[in-house]
This record gives sequence, structure tokens and C-alpha cells, in this order.
Amino acid sequence: MASEAVRDQNNRNEGENRDPGFCGKLMNKVVEFPRKLKKLGQDDPRRIVHSLKVGLAVLLVSLLYYFQPLYDGLGATAMWAVLTVVVVFEFSVGATLGRGLNRILATFLAGALGFGVHHLANLSGETAHPILIGVFVFLLAASVTFLRFFPRLKARYDYGLLIFILTFCLISVSGYRDEEILEMAHKRVSTILIGAFTAVFVCVLICPVWAGDDLHNSVANNIEKLGSFLEGFGDEYFKVVGNTESNKALLQGYSSVLNSKQSEESQANFARWEPRHGKFRYRHPWKHYLKIGTLTRQCAYRIDTLNGYLNSEIQTPLNIQSNKVQELCMKMSSESGKALKELAWALKTMTKPCSAASCHITKSRAAANNLKSLLKTSAALLGSEGIHLLDIVPAITVASLLSDVVSYAEQIEKSIHELSSFSHVQFKSAEPTKTLQPCNSSASSTNDNVPHLVITIHKLPSQQEIGSKQGAAN
Amino acid sequence: MASEAVRDQNNRNEGENRDPGFCGKLMNKVVEFPRKLKKLGQDDPRRIVHSLKVGLAVLLVSLLYYFQPLYDGLGATAMWAVLTVVVVFEFSVGATLGRGLNRILATFLAGALGFGVHHLANLSGETAHPILIGVFVFLLAASVTFLRFFPRLKARYDYGLLIFILTFCLISVSGYRDEEILEMAHKRVSTILIGAFTAVFVCVLICPVWAGDDLHNSVANNIEKLGSFLEGFGDEYFKVVGNTESNKALLQGYSSVLNSKQSEESQANFARWEPRHGKFRYRHPWKHYLKIGTLTRQCAYRIDTLNGYLNSEIQTPLNIQSNKVQELCMKMSSESGKALKELAWALKTMTKPCSAASCHITKSRAAANNLKSLLKTSAALLGSEGIHLLDIVPAITVASLLSDVVSYAEQIEKSIHELSSFSHVQFKSAEPTKTLQPCNSSASSTNDNVPHLVITIHKLPSQQEIGSKQGAAN
Repeated sequence: MASEAVRDQNNRNEGENRDPGFCGKLMNKVVEFPRKLKKLGQDDPRRIVHSLKVGLAVLLVSLLYYFQPLYDGLGATAMWAVLTVVVVFEFSVGATLGRGLNRILATFLAGALGFGVHHLANLSGETAHPILIGVFVFLLAASVTFLRFFPRLKARYDYGLLIFILTFCLISVSGYRDEEILEMAHKRVSTILIGAFTAVFVCVLICPVWAGDDLHNSVANNIEKLGSFLEGFGDEYFKVVGNTESNKALLQGYSSVLNSKQSEESQANFARWEPRHGKFRYRHPWKHYLKIGTLTRQCAYRIDTLNGYLNSEIQTPLNIQSNKVQELCMKMSSESGKALKELAWALKTMTKPCSAASCHITKSRAAANNLKSLLKTSAALLGSEGIHLLDIVPAITVASLLSDVVSYAEQIEKSIHELSSFSHVQFKSAEPTKTLQPCNSSASSTNDNVPHLVITIHKLPSQQEIGSKQGAAN
Repeated sequence: MASEAVRDQNNRNEGENRDPGFCGKLMNKVVEFPRKLKKLGQDDPRRIVHSLKVGLAVLLVSLLYYFQPLYDGLGATAMWAVLTVVVVFEFSVGATLGRGLNRILATFLAGALGFGVHHLANLSGETAHPILIGVFVFLLAASVTFLRFFPRLKARYDYGLLIFILTFCLISVSGYRDEEILEMAHKRVSTILIGAFTAVFVCVLICPVWAGDDLHNSVANNIEKLGSFLEGFGDEYFKVVGNTESNKALLQGYSSVLNSKQSEESQANFARWEPRHGKFRYRHPWKHYLKIGTLTRQCAYRIDTLNGYLNSEIQTPLNIQSNKVQELCMKMSSESGKALKELAWALKTMTKPCSAASCHITKSRAAANNLKSLLKTSAALLGSEGIHLLDIVPAITVASLLSDVVSYAEQIEKSIHELSSFSHVQFKSAEPTKTLQPCNSSASSTNDNVPHLVITIHKLPSQQEIGSKQGAAN
């Protein structure tokens, strides 16, 4: 029913099978490569900026070699600075800070411990030395490797633990004398500090990419994608607009929400390293975004099921398309879609969810309740025109799923309200023009067209703004 | 409706808020830590083995320092061997091989290129030298960093690209003379080779963890988890067995399937590095597992929706619980569950999907069709006892979702058949006892108990086996 992806895959495989041999394939790939690269840059221009920033940071740290006084002091260990820049520089500020701090802290701690063990082994005499070192190296490498499986440590300190093993082994095993080690350690720590600071400064000062901003925007965009699907779903399912392929393609935006868990979690982990920036203070409740994200995904699973009915061959027969069920389903879908879009906008601009959102939610809930009372009088649907119960099964399923979606929209609203009520999160109050909108809470599905229209007009610019920002954020 | 996770989270937060201050929290964490570590090891004992293997590999490579002839040859560069082991050693053979090959190849290529650039710059005179080097370093670092955004390259060669930038900068920037660089390069390549081979040998020879096996088992286990849910769902939903919490908890196994995409993709990437092992040849069609995994997840989204109805307060009223709809829904659920379990078993043991699986699928499809014809005669459901259409909405939705699930079970079966038909994949034929089972394809829901029982008895040991292996695989 909803195996489009699989069918596409099959078609693509068949397409590949028709390719003219290995050379033809290679030629195709060579020709397509620049096009793909261009698209990569267009999809997110920050990638190009990031690449240039890495080039700049490496260039800056390479200057160490040409500054005679610095080079004389550091000598060949200057390479550790280059190494640190290349390894530490990540796309977002949070990731770079996290790796930098991990590297500095782990090098320092492991260096101290390694020096201690090395000194101890030196005291213990010629024969015991290698045995003692061996035992320590084995135990430490094994136990720290095991710690890396610990989910919480893995999320934030994985790189630090790796560097800890590395530095400890390098220092404790090395055949140097104690004085040599101290000098080496001094040089290494300075070069690593130089490298890490160069990376962090370039990353923060030139067009910084904040993981927190990314998380914030991606959670809001995901909610908006679900909203767009729901806004279009009713028309598409009940064939109010022409059944064009482009409409269906427009509705597929939600599918990226389904597998967003891991990227959101890693962004939240990076964001926790970031200092105050823009609208966010240092200890912004990033974890709460994961909660909103989980609700969004659960809603997306229902929407994926709904999407299956779009592509289903079994459609609601024509003679019940013009009835009340259709009207209420379309109402539920479009109102919950609008509500989600309002909520996405409120979250993105950090405005307290305005009454417009709750107004849409109230309307969609009202439509769901109206549908319930309608279904109590089943005669309205069945019987008169010889419609079987079977004929309305898809419509009933869709209605039932939409009612689930309305509950999720309510939960998402509640959850965004919670976020805005955290003491150190500053949500602006909604503009008065919005709060003055009359909410027709108990409105039936026909007599509330006027406030609905007014709200749509008021929101239009802000939604366009979201759209353009979304393009930039991806 | 299905926001258990969120509610749990809230409860947990409340629990944390009641904690007795910072010291109390710290104490709790210290006390809980060993328990958590123990659980980590019990959940997957391979983690302990892996940690010991890393310790051993580091120990082995540290011996370089104590082998006088080797140390004399390599000197301080011996540390690159330790560094390589620590950085390259990963949990699975595929990941270790991938990182090792990436590191060796990238070091070799970047070293050669760096030497070329360094030589060129030396020829160009004192003033042009730093400018030329600077331009090359900037361009290369920026362009290779941009390449790392390319999804295909990122999946398999991300580490290699990083090492390429690193080595190129180290070699081209360094203030050495050409002869010194050649000697350094020689030493570095040898130490990296020693390190990488030590890591790979220890990883492969002692209790190897194959990413391919993991992928194979996790795809099969995911299908089995969905099967277990479906087997239990009918009883739980229609309250045939007591509504205990333990039953509900048992049904939650499927939830890990929802977010399995990224781990499956990375396992497939690692598996492609792995040589022939066990049942798998070198170019096993790992990509096909991703296809099966996608279908499994799509089925899991429907099951998540079904699960929402388990926790829903709106339950099917008692008076229609004993009717034909319930019987057919339970049939669809349990038969598709059994089919998925059979398919999981067939995939796991690489046996051609036996007729038992298709028999269960046929039965579940027959139940779905029976339900359809039943719904055509809606009088059987409504009217007589004053039941409103609203009362049976949940049951109809559940039936509709179950019918979707049956379609997915069919697709998963087809997809496993495809896998078994690849030329270089060797699926065993099913045992004759199974192929001889009579399949009561057009059986109604009551008169097929006998073959069903026979199958259950035949499968029992193998399913237990799956259960125990599943525990080990997690």
C-alpha cells in the first residue's frame, strides 16, 4: 500500500541494470559529480563556509612553522597543533567546543596519570618496569574502553575517553627519562591548547553554526512539515483538487521526520556545550526539545499511516464523498494542520503560543466531537443509498487516525507551553492583534468561515518567513 | 493516547525533584554506577570481550618499545603505532577494517601528495615557499572538508578524508628537508602498518564481532519483535487474557524497531568491508537488508498506531466483543504475527521461507477478506442490539490497520524471497517436514486448528533458540 520507496528502489535498480557497462557507469558518475557537489552547496551554503573556515584554521596554525621564535620553542611538536585543529574542528560550535574541551582535559589528566605510572615503574627497577607498565596499560585501556559503552558517557565524553587511553599509553610506555617526559608534556599541552583555541576561535567568530539553533529550528520545522501535510491531506484524499503528482510530492515532506531521532539527540548533546548565544542562555532546556521531538515523531507515525490511504486503490466511493463525514474530516485535518503550523511558528520565533493556535486546536477538536455525534446516528451514513459498512471503512479509519492526530497536536501544544514556562527561557508575548482574534470554540463546521479567513490572512507573512528560513536551515 | 513515554518521563522528573539535594543525588549515582556497569556487561557480554581485546592490542603494540632492535629502527615514531591501534580498533570487524584501510590509504596518498607539494615549494625559492604551501594547504583542507559532506563518501571514507587532510598538512608544512621527510614518511608508514595490522589481527582472531552478522540478526530480530506484538495484540485488545501490566510491557518490544534506521545503515556500511565469514560471502547483498528493514519500520509505524488503541480509554463495548469481527481481527493479528515470526526464523537461519510462513500469511489474508465480506452485510453488526456506528469505530480502525499490517507481512515475505534468490546467497531449503504441512488456504477461522497446532510444536525449539540468540545479540 505505501511501498512507494521500495518500488522506486526497484525502478532505480532496473535503471542501473540497463546502464551501458562499467565504463558508461563511470562516465555517468564523473559527469554527475560536479552537479551533485553544486547541489550539496546549494542545499546548505553553510557547508561551503564551514569548508573555508577549516582551510583558514589549518592555514593559521601552519603559520606556527614560519614564526621562527615559536617554532624554535616548539620544534617538531608543532605538528600536534595542526593535528588538533583538523581533528577538533566540527560543523557546529557545540561539537567543536565539546571535542576541544574533551581533548584538552583528557590530555591533561591522562598525561598526569601516565607520568605518575611511568615514575612509579622507574622506581621499581629494571625487571619489574615493563611488567608494571604492561599491567597498567592493559587494565586502563580495557576499563576505559568498557566505559565508552556507557550511553551517557558515550554521548558527551566519547572522544575524551579515547584521547585519555591514547595519551596515557603514549606517555607511560615511552622510553624517555622523566625530565624528557615533563618537557614533552609541556610542549604537547601548549600545542594542543594552541590548536584547540585556533579551531574554537575560527569556529565561533566566523559565521558560527550553533547546534542549539539547529535543534530549535529542526524541531520547529518538523512540526511545520506535519502541519503542511495535514493542510493538504483533506483536499488530496477527498479529491477536491485535481489528483496531480506534484500535490502528492508536496505531501511527502513529513517523511524526514520519521527518522529524526538520532540527529536531534546528537544536536542536543552538542548544544549543551554551547555558551549563551542569540535567544538561548547557557542552560537552555535542550532536553525538552527532545520531548517535543518524540511527540512529533509519534504524530508522524500516524501521518505515515494516513499517507498509506492516499496511495490506496480502495477509495471512498463517490456517493458518500459529499456528505458530512468528509466535511468534518477535512475540517479536522486542515484545522490541526493550521494549529501545528501556528505552533511551529510560535516555537521558531519563541513567541508564547498565541490564541490562534489554540483556536485552531479547539476547532479541530470540535470537528472530532461533531463527527462522533454524527456517527451515533449511523442512519445518516448507511442504509438509504445502499451503502455497505465496508464502503465507509477507509473513511472511518482516516477519521479515527485524524482524531489521534488532533490529540497529538494538543499534546504538542501543551509541551510547547511547558517550554515557554521554564524560568530561564524567554518567550515573547504574542502580538495583541493575534490575541484579539475571536475563537469560535463551539462553532459548528459551517458557520466559522469568517474568523478562519481573518486568521489566515494575518499569518501569511510569518509562514512565508518560516518557509524561507527552513530552506536556509536545511 | 499513546504518550506513555512522555508520562514516564514526567514521573521520572518528579522523582528526581524529590531527591535529597546535590549530595544525595551524587551518592545515588555513585551507588548505582557499578550496578549499571554490570547491566551493561550482562546486556551484551561481547562488550567485555571487546574491552579486553583493546587492552591486549595496546599491550602488544607497546612491546615495540621493549624490543630493542625494533625500537632502534623506529625510535619515537613508535608512538604512531600505539596511536593507530587506539584510534582504529572498533567494536566490529567491518568498522576496524574500514578505519584501518582508510588510515593506511589516506596516509599513503596524502604523504605522496604532501611530499610533492613540499618539493615543489622548495624549488620555488625562499619567498614563494610559504605562500605556495599556504595556498595548497588552504585549498586542500577546504575542498576535502567539503567532500566530507557528500553522503556516500561520508558513509565509507569519512575517516580517510580526515586523515588525508591531516597527513597532507603535517608533511607539506613541516620544516624538514626532503631527505628527512622521506625517512620520516618511511617510518610513519611502517608504524601505521604495524598498528593497523595489530588492531585488525586481534579484532579478527579473538572472538570477532562481524557487523554483517549483527545486521542480519538485528533485521531478523526486528521482524520477530513485530511478530511477538501481533501475536499478543489480539488477546490484549479484546481482553481475552487478564489485563496485567506485564502483558502490556511484553508488547512494548517493538518500539526499538521505530528508530533502527541509522544503526542498520551504519552496520551495512561496515559489513561491506568484511571478507567472507560464516554464512556470508564477500559481496553479500547487504543493501537488500536495508530494504527489508525499511518495510519492517513502515509496518512498525502501523503497529505503534495499533498500540495507541491498547492504551485508549475508548474500548470496544462489551456487547460486540463476542462477535465475528473480534474473531477475525484476532485471527488476522495472530496469523500475521506467526507469519512474521516464521519469516524472522527463516531469515535468521537462512532457510528458504517455508510454506508455514506463507500458510500463515494466506490465513491472515483470508481472515481479512472474510472481514470484508462480513462488513458488506452491515446488519450483522449494527441495528439489532441498538449499537451505534460510533461504538464500532475503534474496532473498525483496528481491523483496517491490521489489514495494512497483513499487506506489509506479504511485502516482507516477498522481500525475503528476493534475498534468498540472489545468485551468491545460499539459503538452505526448508526441511521436508515443513514443506509437507497442508496449507488450509481458504480455511475459515474455526476449522484449521489441527495443522496450526502441528506447526506450533514443530517450531517451538527453533523459536526458543531465536529468543536466546536475540538476548545475546543485544
